[in-house]
Amino acid sequence: MADYTKMWTGLGLDLDNHDALLENLGGAYQSIFMSQKHRPEAMGYFDFVMSEAHGLRIKELREEQEAGRKIIGSFCVFVPEEIILAAGCTSVGLCSGADFAQEEVEKVLPRNTCSLIKSFFGFSLAKVCPYMEVSDLIVGENTCDGKKKAFETFKEMVPNFYQMDMPQNKAPMGRKLLTHEFKSFLAKLEEMTGKKITKKDLQEGIATVNAKRAALSRLAKLRAADPCPISGLDALLINQIAFLDNPARFTEKLNALCDELEVLVKEKKGAIAKNAPRILISGCPMAIPNWKVPAIIEATGAVIVGEESCIGERGQRNTTDDSADTLEGLIDAVVDRYFKIDCAVFTPNQERVEHIKEMTKNYNADGVIHYGLQFCQPYIMESFSVEKLLEKDGISIMRLETDYSQEDMGQLSTRVEAFVEIIK
Amino acid sequence: MADYTKMWTGLGLDLDNHDALLENLGGAYQSIFMSQKHRPEAMGYFDFVMSEAHGLRIKELREEQEAGRKIIGSFCVFVPEEIILAAGCTSVGLCSGADFAQEEVEKVLPRNTCSLIKSFFGFSLAKVCPYMEVSDLIVGENTCDGKKKAFETFKEMVPNFYQMDMPQNKAPMGRKLLTHEFKSFLAKLEEMTGKKITKKDLQEGIATVNAKRAALSRLAKLRAADPCPISGLDALLINQIAFLDNPARFTEKLNALCDELEVLVKEKKGAIAKNAPRILISGCPMAIPNWKVPAIIEATGAVIVGEESCIGERGQRNTTDDSADTLEGLIDAVVDRYFKIDCAVFTPNQERVEHIKEMTKNYNADGVIHYGLQFCQPYIMESFSVEKLLEKDGISIMRLETDYSQEDMGQLSTRVEAFVEIIK
Repeated sequence: MADYTKMWTGLGLDLDNHDALLENLGGAYQSIFMSQKHRPEAMGYFDFVMSEAHGLRIKELREEQEAGRKIIGSFCVFVPEEIILAAGCTSVGLCSGADFAQEEVEKVLPRNTCSLIKSFFGFSLAKVCPYMEVSDLIVGENTCDGKKKAFETFKEMVPNFYQMDMPQNKAPMGRKLLTHEFKSFLAKLEEMTGKKITKKDLQEGIATVNAKRAALSRLAKLRAADPCPISGLDALLINQIAFLDNPARFTEKLNALCDELEVLVKEKKGAIAKNAPRILISGCPMAIPNWKVPAIIEATGAVIVGEESCIGERGQRNTTDDSADTLEGLIDAVVDRYFKIDCAVFTPNQERVEHIKEMTKNYNADGVIHYGLQFCQPYIMESFSVEKLLEKDGISIMRLETDYSQEDMGQLSTRVEAFVEIIK
Repeated sequence: MADYTKMWTGLGLDLDNHDALLENLGGAYQSIFMSQKHRPEAMGYFDFVMSEAHGLRIKELREEQEAGRKIIGSFCVFVPEEIILAAGCTSVGLCSGADFAQEEVEKVLPRNTCSLIKSFFGFSLAKVCPYMEVSDLIVGENTCDGKKKAFETFKEMVPNFYQMDMPQNKAPMGRKLLTHEFKSFLAKLEEMTGKKITKKDLQEGIATVNAKRAALSRLAKLRAADPCPISGLDALLINQIAFLDNPARFTEKLNALCDELEVLVKEKKGAIAKNAPRILISGCPMAIPNWKVPAIIEATGAVIVGEESCIGERGQRNTTDDSADTLEGLIDAVVDRYFKIDCAVFTPNQERVEHIKEMTKNYNADGVIHYGLQFCQPYIMESFSVEKLLEKDGISIMRLETDYSQEDMGQLSTRVEAFVEIIK
């Protein structure tokens, strides 16, 4: 990596903290990803993106900013990238997947807060996240109680916070609320950029995001093969990078990877051995560098064939209908697409369990591991009914509850090994 | 108490479990309430209500039912009693304040769920709550993630569940949502009773509830005196009974108590000694028989002078404007009144800290104890900013986090004693 010290200093990063983070991250990446055998060649691009996640990609974002583009950071797949692109802005994900500055975090947040929230607080307090620092606007949303209430504190920590309200159910009033919030967000971006969003702008935004989602869906489907042409770890990584990379380039590179995977599937070549136990992961999102549970699962010789998660299929399924011939109609289509997301903050949320069953079938999974972040009430509460309904259908499921610490690695390994043993 | 075995059996209560609960409850009541010295005479009525909470009051509700009245049970001060009364129905509170059947509960709910939710699940699973069993309709609301998601399971456990959506902020769209939900609830009650609600019905409902809230407000203000004419425990009990008793009779008896307290204040007679350290409690609601923390506080010789709580002033402040001359206008006035409730599920919720400061001043409190139920994310998250803002104003505050168990009594006592020592 080139010397980005000047850029990082300019962004206000704490260089000592940041060095410590990068060192940790690099070590984890080497041991988890680079030690895998039989990786597709086209993963080289994604390895490169990861190695330059705090370097070249940030430089690109800075250059975009210098050219007048605004960078919009967010924490949730409900923030519509189509509208961000239509406004001539760039979207970046700010969720983070590692403990940092825990002691400082627990001065402002309860100990019993989920790791994902604590993590982005830690990244902000310790000044180690260049994506957060480069963002011109940081968008929070009223999804779960944890984020909703934590944002009250977070918005005092950053100079540029914008809050988006969220419905709690899928009734017509809920849809009205989401429409209202998407329109307010669009107006906010117009105000920031001083530019009206046209029908053509939104069409282009939709086209870019649809292409990205189509490529991610192509990747998802290729994992149905046995042997699986790509590891679950690599597929998760791609889904994580989808929140950081330039969307058009990402789509092109992902399609190139899929071309390679198609050949591998035809040749019956796998990243993981044929007849490996096949696991579907379902539950809370796993943000970079939260690779703990997938690494444990694939270390047993099993392969993860899908992620029913925001960083995964829940967040990326469904493209947006681009056929409307007015701006209003296109906005409606965007709302339609997002209103389908089956996040556990909605009540009821029966579609989710149907999707889990569907994914289990489509990707030939032998069992489901439900991944719950400790203190994430929506997903952990919902995991009880998910378990009941899957078991009713004869689908094996194990519920895990963990955080970002490494302390429970041994215990998790034992449980995962036992589960993998049972399902095969 | 008369023999209500037949009635309890008829309601489907589990008599063994119910006996065990009543025995526990009776013992706690004796040791906590009846051991207090210098109680106002008029507390006799409230002692009687408590002694007959599962007897005579349930008999009354059964008689109301036989006369064609519907009983509406609910878990939240956002369920509008005015509308329930207007529909010719009776409102009862279903929140509960004791652990019961914990092992059964943890089969359907995560261990990391707040005690209040676990408690009403336990009361339902063990069949010990006659109010739950007598209810013709049980209303749940989308307030916190915990209740919202737990209700998905709960509605499968009871035959008559109705869900009310809730806004998450106080923006105009939030008010629209609450209006929509109140109107849907009104329509649901009309459908159940087969009777249209008229302007006169709602005026009468508003008058009854306004009179109750005025009496509760009268009680609250009398506690500003030093010596305090009534203990915090007795005042809390009255606020708890407000959710169970016949509202008109309750109001009459509470006003009689207030008449007595006015005399006591004039004569400078107190339930607790003059110059006792004065505590304001703020935070999560305390449902019957959750008297743990107030008992600990008053055992130190301090007096609780107010409850900033749903079971207390947050739930009962503000009457409803009855001046509108249309049904629509009156419904709007009801929405206005409820939309002011400063529950921590709203974001932002600055009004609450202003109310805490106001109550501290009005009731001459020496310090605030913030009562957080473990795993109640909204109140515990908010307690961090509440603490910061009160300390900025020089108001002493201590944050407690506890559950319904008795295991931390010693530790809580030590902390409360130290706090009381400091503030005086």
